Amino acid sequence: MNPTLWNKGFKPNQAIHQFTIGNDNELDMHLIIYDCLATKAHIEMLGKIKILTSEEVKQVTFELDELIQLVQTGKFEITKEEDCHTAIENFLTKKLGDIGKNVHTGRSRNDQVLTALRLYYQDELKAVKNLCLEFIAALENFKKQHGSIEFPGYTHMRKAMPSSIDLWTSAFVDSMEDNLQLLKAVETLINQCPLGTGAGYGIPLNLDREFTAKKLGFQKIQSNPIYAQMSRGKFESSLVHVLSQIMFDLNKLSNDSILFSMPEFSYFELPKNICTGSSIMPQKQNPDVLELLRAKYHLVTGFEFQIKNITGNLISGYNRDIQLTKELVINSFQVTKECLQVVAIFISNLKVDKKRCQIAMTKELFATEETYSLMQKYDMPFREAYQKTAKKFL
Amino acid sequence: MNPTLWNKGFKPNQAIHQFTIGNDNELDMHLIIYDCLATKAHIEMLGKIKILTSEEVKQVTFELDELIQLVQTGKFEITKEEDCHTAIENFLTKKLGDIGKNVHTGRSRNDQVLTALRLYYQDELKAVKNLCLEFIAALENFKKQHGSIEFPGYTHMRKAMPSSIDLWTSAFVDSMEDNLQLLKAVETLINQCPLGTGAGYGIPLNLDREFTAKKLGFQKIQSNPIYAQMSRGKFESSLVHVLSQIMFDLNKLSNDSILFSMPEFSYFELPKNICTGSSIMPQKQNPDVLELLRAKYHLVTGFEFQIKNITGNLISGYNRDIQLTKELVINSFQVTKECLQVVAIFISNLKVDKKRCQIAMTKELFATEETYSLMQKYDMPFREAYQKTAKKFL
Amino acid sequence: MNPTLWNKGFKPNQAIHQFTIGNDNELDMHLIIYDCLATKAHIEMLGKIKILTSEEVKQVTFELDELIQLVQTGKFEITKEEDCHTAIENFLTKKLGDIGKNVHTGRSRNDQVLTALRLYYQDELKAVKNLCLEFIAALENFKKQHGSIEFPGYTHMRKAMPSSIDLWTSAFVDSMEDNLQLLKAVETLINQCPLGTGAGYGIPLNLDREFTAKKLGFQKIQSNPIYAQMSRGKFESSLVHVLSQIMFDLNKLSNDSILFSMPEFSYFELPKNICTGSSIMPQKQNPDVLELLRAKYHLVTGFEFQIKNITGNLISGYNRDIQLTKELVINSFQVTKECLQVVAIFISNLKVDKKRCQIAMTKELFATEETYSLMQKYDMPFREAYQKTAKKFL
Amino acid sequence: MNPTLWNKGFKPNQAIHQFTIGNDNELDMHLIIYDCLATKAHIEMLGKIKILTSEEVKQVTFELDELIQLVQTGKFEITKEEDCHTAIENFLTKKLGDIGKNVHTGRSRNDQVLTALRLYYQDELKAVKNLCLEFIAALENFKKQHGSIEFPGYTHMRKAMPSSIDLWTSAFVDSMEDNLQLLKAVETLINQCPLGTGAGYGIPLNLDREFTAKKLGFQKIQSNPIYAQMSRGKFESSLVHVLSQIMFDLNKLSNDSILFSMPEFSYFELPKNICTGSSIMPQKQNPDVLELLRAKYHLVTGFEFQIKNITGNLISGYNRDIQLTKELVINSFQVTKECLQVVAIFISNLKVDKKRCQIAMTKELFATEETYSLMQKYDMPFREAYQKTAKKFL
Repeated sequence: MNPTLWNKGFKPNQAIHQFTIGNDNELDMHLIIYDCLATKAHIEMLGKIKILTSEEVKQVTFELDELIQLVQTGKFEITKEEDCHTAIENFLTKKLGDIGKNVHTGRSRNDQVLTALRLYYQDELKAVKNLCLEFIAALENFKKQHGSIEFPGYTHMRKAMPSSIDLWTSAFVDSMEDNLQLLKAVETLINQCPLGTGAGYGIPLNLDREFTAKKLGFQKIQSNPIYAQMSRGKFESSLVHVLSQIMFDLNKLSNDSILFSMPEFSYFELPKNICTGSSIMPQKQNPDVLELLRAKYHLVTGFEFQIKNITGNLISGYNRDIQLTKELVINSFQVTKECLQVVAIFISNLKVDKKRCQIAMTKELFATEETYSLMQKYDMPFREAYQKTAKKFL
Repeated sequence: MNPTLWNKGFKPNQAIHQFTIGNDNELDMHLIIYDCLATKAHIEMLGKIKILTSEEVKQVTFELDELIQLVQTGKFEITKEEDCHTAIENFLTKKLGDIGKNVHTGRSRNDQVLTALRLYYQDELKAVKNLCLEFIAALENFKKQHGSIEFPGYTHMRKAMPSSIDLWTSAFVDSMEDNLQLLKAVETLINQCPLGTGAGYGIPLNLDREFTAKKLGFQKIQSNPIYAQMSRGKFESSLVHVLSQIMFDLNKLSNDSILFSMPEFSYFELPKNICTGSSIMPQKQNPDVLELLRAKYHLVTGFEFQIKNITGNLISGYNRDIQLTKELVINSFQVTKECLQVVAIFISNLKVDKKRCQIAMTKELFATEETYSLMQKYDMPFREAYQKTAKKFL
Repeated sequence: MNPTLWNKGFKPNQAIHQFTIGNDNELDMHLIIYDCLATKAHIEMLGKIKILTSEEVKQVTFELDELIQLVQTGKFEITKEEDCHTAIENFLTKKLGDIGKNVHTGRSRNDQVLTALRLYYQDELKAVKNLCLEFIAALENFKKQHGSIEFPGYTHMRKAMPSSIDLWTSAFVDSMEDNLQLLKAVETLINQCPLGTGAGYGIPLNLDREFTAKKLGFQKIQSNPIYAQMSRGKFESSLVHVLSQIMFDLNKLSNDSILFSMPEFSYFELPKNICTGSSIMPQKQNPDVLELLRAKYHLVTGFEFQIKNITGNLISGYNRDIQLTKELVINSFQVTKECLQVVAIFISNLKVDKKRCQIAMTKELFATEETYSLMQKYDMPFREAYQKTAKKFL
Repeated sequence: MNPTLWNKGFKPNQAIHQFTIGNDNELDMHLIIYDCLATKAHIEMLGKIKILTSEEVKQVTFELDELIQLVQTGKFEITKEEDCHTAIENFLTKKLGDIGKNVHTGRSRNDQVLTALRLYYQDELKAVKNLCLEFIAALENFKKQHGSIEFPGYTHMRKAMPSSIDLWTSAFVDSMEDNLQLLKAVETLINQCPLGTGAGYGIPLNLDREFTAKKLGFQKIQSNPIYAQMSRGKFESSLVHVLSQIMFDLNKLSNDSILFSMPEFSYFELPKNICTGSSIMPQKQNPDVLELLRAKYHLVTGFEFQIKNITGNLISGYNRDIQLTKELVINSFQVTKECLQVVAIFISNLKVDKKRCQIAMTKELFATEETYSLMQKYDMPFREAYQKTAKKFL
C-alpha cells in the first residue's frame, strides 16, 4: 500500500519517492501534536458549518486526543513513509473509516503544515524567552556576587580604560533584554493564522476562519492565501535572525570568557568540572564548552542564510523548495535552546579572581582620566593635555 | 602635517596608514551632517556643565552651522586623509584655535561615530518607510485598475487553482505592511543614544547624557557603555535584515513578473520603454530591470551576512573590524532605496493582458472545486471525491 | 565509569559534559573504520621503532581487524558517551588490557581525527567522482536519444536563438567534466598525511611518519604540525566548495527542467512515476524531485559558509570550534551523493516532446540569422542590418 | 542621442534606464583594455574569414591601439551612459563610420564581456600569485631572523606544547604554497576562450574560434556556447573561493599577531609606526592594520556567497542577474591584493621579543614530553604515565 494522500494507482519510482519524502517522519515528531490541535479546531469548525455532524466531530476529536496522548507518552511513531499529516489522516481513517477520510476537507497540506509550524514556533519562542530570562537571572546573580570587582576594559584587544564585572555583566543583560524586544516583534509577526488558505489560493467552501484562528489562540487570521505561502521561509528568516542575535551575545560572552580565563590573564576562573581534558597533554583544562558556544553562533547564522537563499528567486505560490526550511528552523531552535541552557550553567559556575583583576589595573588604564585632570587643573585645551599625557607612554 | 587626532610626532608607515584610513572620506559624506548635529548637542551640554563658556558654545555652534551649510551646498569635502570626525575637529580648530581643540572633550570617536550612525539610520529608515508606502500606493493603484482579472494560481510551477490580480497584488501589500511593522521594531531598537559612552567604558567626567539624548531626539540613552559598543554590528545586522525582507518581496514580485510576461504566458505586459534590447538579437525586449531587482536581494542578504561574520568571534569592547560594517550598511540602504523607487515605477507601468489571462483559465484549475461539489452533492467522503476527480486528469 | 580519555577522577558537570560530546557517537560511525585503519598503520610503525613488540603489534592488529568486521556487519555501536577514538581505545583496552592503553602513544586525538577524516574524504570523493561519471553517462545517453531535436534557446527568460537538446545536454556534460578537474585539484590538496603531528606541535618521539603515510596510501606527509591543524576547516571549505559547484549544475538543470516541463512549454515531459501529487488538488503532477534538487544547492553552499565562518577569527592551533565542521562535511557529502544519484535517474526518465519543440521554433529566434543574411547579401554594415530587422519586431 | 547599441527609436524610462546601466562606466575601466585586445583579435579573424577587408582590419586595429594608449595614459573615460563595449563601438564609429558599425559582427555583448573578463582574471590572478610569492619571501625572511626562538604553542587558547617561530612561520608558508596550487587549478579552469559563443547559442557565421583563442593566448576554446554562459558566475565563484582561502591565512596570521602582541603576552612586538592611536586615550598603540586584515576575510567570503546566490535558481542561458557578479569579483581582487601587500609589509616590520618568549616557556608545556619519558623509563603504559603526570597539574 502507498500511504501518500494522492495515491492514484501507479507505482512511483522508489529512489525518487524516497528522496522526496526525506526525513519528514523524524522532523514531524516536533509537529505532530500541533497538527492534532489544529486538526481538532478545523474539525470543530467543519461541524459548525455543517460539513461534519456533531457526532463525527466528537468521534474525531476523541481519536485526536488519543493520538496526542500516544505521542506524549512516546507510544506513537510516524512511519518512514509518512509525514505527520499523512500519519494523522491514516490513524483516523484506520480508527473511523470514512469519517477519517473527511478530515482533510477544506484543507490543503500547505495550510495544514503552515498552521502546525506557527503553533510550534510560538511554543518554541516561549521556551526561548524563558531560557533567556533564566540566563539573565544567572547574569544578575553573577553580578551580585562579583559586580564590584574592577578589571581592565579593552579596545582593539589592548588595555583601554577601567571596567568592572558589574559593567561587563550588565552589558549582556541589556543586550539580552533588547533581544527579547525583537523576539516579541517576531512573535507578533508570526501570530497570524494561515488555516483555511488551502494550497495558497483559498478554499472553495464557506470556512469560518475566524473561528479556527480564535480557537487556536491566534491574534488574527492571515487573510491573503498567497501571502500565507509567501510568508513561509520569510517569517522563518526573521525568526532565525532573532535566534542568531541571541547567539551573537553568547558568542561574545564565550570569547571574552575564553580570553579572560587564560592563565596569562586569569581574571576569570573556570571550575575544573566544566573543563575538558586532552588525550595527549596531561596538564590541560580546556574550555570546550565555551568554544562550542562560540562556534554555534555560526551554525545559526548559516541556517538563516540557507533559509534566505532557498526561498530566493522563486515565483510566488508554494514551491517544494521551502519545505527544506522546516529542518533548518527546528535545528535553530534546538541549538539556541541548548546553548542558552548551557551558558546559564556556565555563568553560574564562573568565578572571578579578584586579586588577579586588581594586579591588572595598571596605570595606562588611567591615562584618559589623567588627561581630563590635567585639562581641568591647568585649564588646558583637551588636545594639549592629551599630547602631554601621551608622551609618558611613548 | 599629519591630520590624525593622535599624532604623536613619528611618521606612520605610509602604505599601512593608507590601508587603515581606507575610503572613510567618501563614506563619511553620508555622516558628516549628523556628526555636526551631534557635536552641536555635545557642545551645548559641555556649556551646561561648565566645561565650555557660553561664548565658546556660541562660537562653535556658529561654525558648525556654517559647516553644515557648506556640506549641504556641496562646498565641503573631506580630504583623503580624514574621516568626518577629524574633518570637523580640523575645521573648528582652523577657525577657532584652542576652542576647536576642546570639542572632543568628553567624547571618543567610538561614541561619536555611533551617534552619527544612529541619526543617519533613523533618517534612512524614514526614507525607506516612505518608499515602502509609495510602493504600496502603486500596488493599490495597480489593483484598482486590474484587480478583477482572474488568472491561474501556481504551485510547484504548475497550474493549481484560480487566482486573481487582486489576490496577487494584495499579497505583496500585506507583506510590505508586515515589513513596516518589523522596521518599526528595529527603529525602536536603535533609538538609544550612545553619546557619552566614550570608547566603551564611559567618560570620567560628569556628562549630562539625558540632555544630549533629548536634544538629538532619542527616546532614551543607551546607558551601558560596553553594550553601546557591543550593539554596533549587532543593531546593523537587524537593520539590514529588515531591508533584506523588503528586498525578498521585490525578488518575488520580479520573478513572478518575469515569468508571467514571457510571451508563452503573456498574463503581464511590460511596456517597451522599460525593457532593454540586445546588442546582437534585433527582436529582443528584455526585462533587465526585473532581473536586477531580483538579483539585488542577494546583495543585501550578503551584506547582512558580512556584518554578522565580521562581528563574530571577537571579544567585547571596540575592535576596528566593526568599522567595515559602515560601508555595508550604507550600501544596503542605497540598494534598497533605489530598488523601491524602481519597483514602484515598474508596477505603475505594468499592464495586464485580460484576454490571455482568460484563455489560461483552463479546466484543471477547477478540479478542487469539482471535488468539493462532488463531495457535497453525493455526500461522498473527501478522499473518494478526490480519487474520482483525479481519474479525469491521469 | 567515565569513558573519556582524560578522566582525572572528578565528576564533570553532566549538562555541560553532554553538550561537549554532542552527537559524535552517530557521526563517527562514518569514520570508525578509517580510524581503525590509521590505528593499524600507527601500531605497525610503533613496532618498527620498537615502542611496541612485534607480538603486541600482532595482537592489536588482530583486534582492530575484528573491530572493523564488527562495524561492517553492523554489530558495533559507539556508545552515547564515546567518540570513535575513545571507542577504539576502550575496545582494545577491554580486549588486551595494558597493550590497549598504549595505542595512543605517539598520537593525539587531533592528528588521529585529521587522519581518519582525510581517509574518509578520499573515499567519499571517489564515490562522488563515480556518481558524476554515471550522471555524465546518463546525459550522454539522453543526448543520443533526443540530441537532434531543436528547441528555443533563452536569454533573459525570453526566446533568443535556436538551441537543441544536443547543445543543452552537452553544456552540462562539459560543466560536470570541469567539476571533475576541480575535484581532482582538491583531492591532491588533501592528499597529505597529518598522522604524527600530534596536537599541533609535533610528538616528542622519533616517529617514522613516512612509513605510516605510505602505508595509508597518502602521496606525502603534511610535515608542519601547525599547518596540519590550520588546514582543518580550510581544506574542508575547498572540498565543500567543489561539491557546491556540482550542486550548482544540478540546480540549473532542475530549474531548466521545471520550466521546460510546464504545460505552457511542454518541451520536456516528466513521467508520472517521478512526479508527486497534491493532497487537495486531484489534477496535480508536481516536480517535487526537481524542486528539492534545486533547493539542496543552497544547503551545500550554506554548509560551506558555516565552515568558513566557524574557522574565522580564531588563532592558530586546535580550537574546539572546528570540530563542528565534521558534521557539515558529512552532510555535504550525503546531500551531494544522494542528489547525483537522483538526478541521473531523473535524466534517464526524462522525455522530450519533439512536436512541441518544433512548434516553439518561431520566427523571432531567427532574427539574428536574418540580420547576418541581410548584411552579407546587401553588403550592409552590421548595425544597419540590425536596425532593419529590428523594425519587424517592434 | 541614445548611445545604447539597441536604440530602436523610442525613449526609455529614464529612472529605469539609469538603474539598468548602474555603475558600469566605472567598473569597466578595469576591463576596457582587455576588451580592446579581444576586439583586435576578433577583427583580425573577421579579416581572415573575409568579412572585413585587410584595409578595414588595419584601420580598426590602428584605432584600437590608439584607444588602448588613451586609456593607459588616463585620457579616456567611459561616459555615464556607456559600458566599455558601447564605448569602444562608439569610439570606432566616430573615427571610422560604417567600419566601426561592423566590429560587432559575429559577436554578442555576452561573449564579448566573458572574454574581456577572462583576460582580466588571468592578469589579476598573476598579480595575486606574485603578491603571494612576495608574502612568502617576507615570511621566509622573518623566519631567518627569528626562527630559532621558542615560544608556547596553544590549543583551545591554552598553553599546550613547545612551539617556535620557525614552526609558526613555516605553517603559513606551507599554507600559502597550497593556495598557489589551488589558484593554478582555477587558472586552468578559466583558461577557456568564450569568444564566438555569441549570446549563448553560437553565431550563424563561420567564425574561426581557434584563431582568436590562440591569438589571445587561451589554452583552448570553450566550445559549448550554453556552457560558456553557464560558467559565468560559476567560474567566478571558484575564483573568489581561492581568494578567500588566501584571506583565511591572513585572517589567522592577524589574529595570532593581535594576541601575541598583547602586552600580556608580548611574544610579538608591533613597531609604533604601524600602529594607530586613539582619539581619547593617549597611551594607545592599536593594531588597526591587523584588525582590518582579519575583518576583510569576511568581505571576500561574503562576495563569494553573493556570487553563489545571485546565480542560483536561474535557468540556463544569460540572465542579467549575473552581471552583478562583475563588481563582486573586481572587489574581491582589489581587497585581496591590497591585503597581501599590507601583510607583507607587516611581517617585514614585525619583531619578536626573545626574552618574553623564553619566560613564557613554563613547565606545563613539557607535560607531554614528561609523560613519554616516564613511559619509556619505567616501561609504563601510556595512559598510566599520563595519569601520573596529570596529577601534578590538578
